Amino acid sequence: MNIIVQKFGGSSVANTERVRNVAGRIIDAYQEGKSVVVVVSAQGDTTDDLLEKAAEINPSPSKREMDVLLSTGEQISMALLAMAIEQRGCPVVSLTGWQVGMNTDSKYGSARIKQIDTERIKRELDAKRIVIVAGFQGINQYDDITTLGRGGSDTTAVALAAALHAQVCEIYTDVDGVYTADPRIVKNAKKLDDISYDEMLELASLGANVLHNRSVELALKYGVNLEVKSSFEKIRGTIVKEVGSVEKMLVRGVTRDNNVARISVVNIENTPGKAFKLFSLLAKKNINVDVILQSIGRGDTKDITFTVDEGNLDAAIAVIDENLGYLGATSVNYTKDVSKVSVVGAGMTSNPGVAALMFEALYDANINIHMISTSEIKISVLIDRQDAENAVRSIHDKFNLA
Amino acid sequence: MNIIVQKFGGSSVANTERVRNVAGRIIDAYQEGKSVVVVVSAQGDTTDDLLEKAAEINPSPSKREMDVLLSTGEQISMALLAMAIEQRGCPVVSLTGWQVGMNTDSKYGSARIKQIDTERIKRELDAKRIVIVAGFQGINQYDDITTLGRGGSDTTAVALAAALHAQVCEIYTDVDGVYTADPRIVKNAKKLDDISYDEMLELASLGANVLHNRSVELALKYGVNLEVKSSFEKIRGTIVKEVGSVEKMLVRGVTRDNNVARISVVNIENTPGKAFKLFSLLAKKNINVDVILQSIGRGDTKDITFTVDEGNLDAAIAVIDENLGYLGATSVNYTKDVSKVSVVGAGMTSNPGVAALMFEALYDANINIHMISTSEIKISVLIDRQDAENAVRSIHDKFNLA
Repeated sequence: MNIIVQKFGGSSVANTERVRNVAGRIIDAYQEGKSVVVVVSAQGDTTDDLLEKAAEINPSPSKREMDVLLSTGEQISMALLAMAIEQRGCPVVSLTGWQVGMNTDSKYGSARIKQIDTERIKRELDAKRIVIVAGFQGINQYDDITTLGRGGSDTTAVALAAALHAQVCEIYTDVDGVYTADPRIVKNAKKLDDISYDEMLELASLGANVLHNRSVELALKYGVNLEVKSSFEKIRGTIVKEVGSVEKMLVRGVTRDNNVARISVVNIENTPGKAFKLFSLLAKKNINVDVILQSIGRGDTKDITFTVDEGNLDAAIAVIDENLGYLGATSVNYTKDVSKVSVVGAGMTSNPGVAALMFEALYDANINIHMISTSEIKISVLIDRQDAENAVRSIHDKFNLA
Repeated sequence: MNIIVQKFGGSSVANTERVRNVAGRIIDAYQEGKSVVVVVSAQGDTTDDLLEKAAEINPSPSKREMDVLLSTGEQISMALLAMAIEQRGCPVVSLTGWQVGMNTDSKYGSARIKQIDTERIKRELDAKRIVIVAGFQGINQYDDITTLGRGGSDTTAVALAAALHAQVCEIYTDVDGVYTADPRIVKNAKKLDDISYDEMLELASLGANVLHNRSVELALKYGVNLEVKSSFEKIRGTIVKEVGSVEKMLVRGVTRDNNVARISVVNIENTPGKAFKLFSLLAKKNINVDVILQSIGRGDTKDITFTVDEGNLDAAIAVIDENLGYLGATSVNYTKDVSKVSVVGAGMTSNPGVAALMFEALYDANINIHMISTSEIKISVLIDRQDAENAVRSIHDKFNLA
């Protein structure tokens, strides 16, 4: 069977006109003789509305009940999309997470997919129906509803494409592909025709809001061909795949991430095991740490500075405050007024000029660097948030990405 | 186990304040040591909003997809109610139709409950949790979502009470019990302390919007004790049960039903089998017929007049129009401008004075009667809609129900 998976995000189905438009895109593929499986997110603001309703009633509800609530958003949009397809006379069926056997673990709010029973979907495809699946949701071993957390619908789509051995997984979004930088910041940013999984992974995790990194990881693991496309215009998007030769162009893109906060634990005792204690405290609270910088010890004490997602800042500060004595530290301070700006491209570490060129671009723009972090295929700097857009433009120019 | 089932309708959970209030009622019962199972409807206008969204996209969607859409309303309200209970520190779990094993047939939009797997609910009750169940919804043999149609949440509640052998099924609503007439029409209408199943059944089917007759039928069949109570005030409601002696008060209440349309098929051939043909055509389209009147034949022809729910009028006219030749009739006409007004009370037929008193009340008020229908425990008349409220008041006075 010639199966394709198409994923449409919340803005692509935000109102009746857009739902109709999406129905048209789906029917086009169906009429080309493909077996079409569609993953759909909640409409536009639905999830925010539901969160607001919940917050009014209980500021800290259980994650289980939150998942029961939030999963209705995708169920609504999948039914409406199915109705729009019925209206055009095509056979269609919508299925929730539990109906497609999207089995996950029990981590409510950020569940991981364990296994998909594709039997129901295959039966519907055999009957020549278009299958609409609710993104973002699954079911755990207790028959309870789970949600997959940030970027969940992308993950649903890629996981289905892998399980169904789909030809391609098309991610429809409100941009028409992956760019060398955010086109809203850099006017002459260029769309990439293709990009490797690794590069996409770095771009995704560094604030390019096109694809969530979990879905790219999954695509890489199972060799799923991804294409990021516009849901509004019928033009070629960006294909994510194993790219053979990526040496022609070293740096593929520049990204900015504002979802970051910097925390400094000051005057920690300069004895072994302190960093271990600090980061295992945070890990126990499920707080991911990104860039870490440890000062060179000043005799008896040292400082440890690191970044976390903004949403985890309060929890991180709370746990550190409680444990200052245990850590042998005097105080903790923090700021949200920072951004992480990164350049991404395969083979970067083997080319030492890249870091220098990036730092030169920041120097040209008179921007101070707080922290630096590097990996195989990216270099990130932490700078003041007010400088971030300027930094992206300056770096984009310096690397001639336009 | 001392199980009670409480059902809260859409207006009882329409906003945050009311959800909190309902949570309080539930917790009261829980703290008295009861095992509490709660059935909840969709909040206030949710269902109408969903219907509107659907209508914008497709004026005649499949009933399957409509059920997928509508069932989200109850899922939202059950999660919010559970969150309100969590906020008060009580253990609670919310469960959808498929999670409680509410197995139905496959008649989307008006499914019938076939069987309930109470295993999950019992396990949650054993763990001392309050169980919130989504009303109105079930699951069919194909693992597809169904809804139960009008009065569905009442039916869910009574079916659960029967399956769990609950002590009582409390139906919380925005009125505080069953009245001798609609208090909005008759100022001095009186609340009944108790009423028999049969009487409740007639009242329910005759337009008293307190309980749906399907749920009363089910309660009668399984001997479930029902109590209709106010969700706002803590006062005694009306208990529906097998009443031993009901002879003291013959007529229990007066009702008005505006959800009715009158259809006349004119000049039908006066030969056997015509009524059969007409009503089997309607039955095939799932149209219920209520009051039927056949004129005495005028030689070759006769007329058949009957009433249907307003919502079925268009479909009924369409099928009759198509089959005028087959029925040997010349034409069909109809009006929505009628109401059915009824008096209900056990033992009525054995007391011929009741009908006469009712007709006298209508005569006093100068109201013309189009059709009359009687049963063991009710007398109904079809009159012009503009006369209906006046008729209810006049009859209520005549029988001294205040």
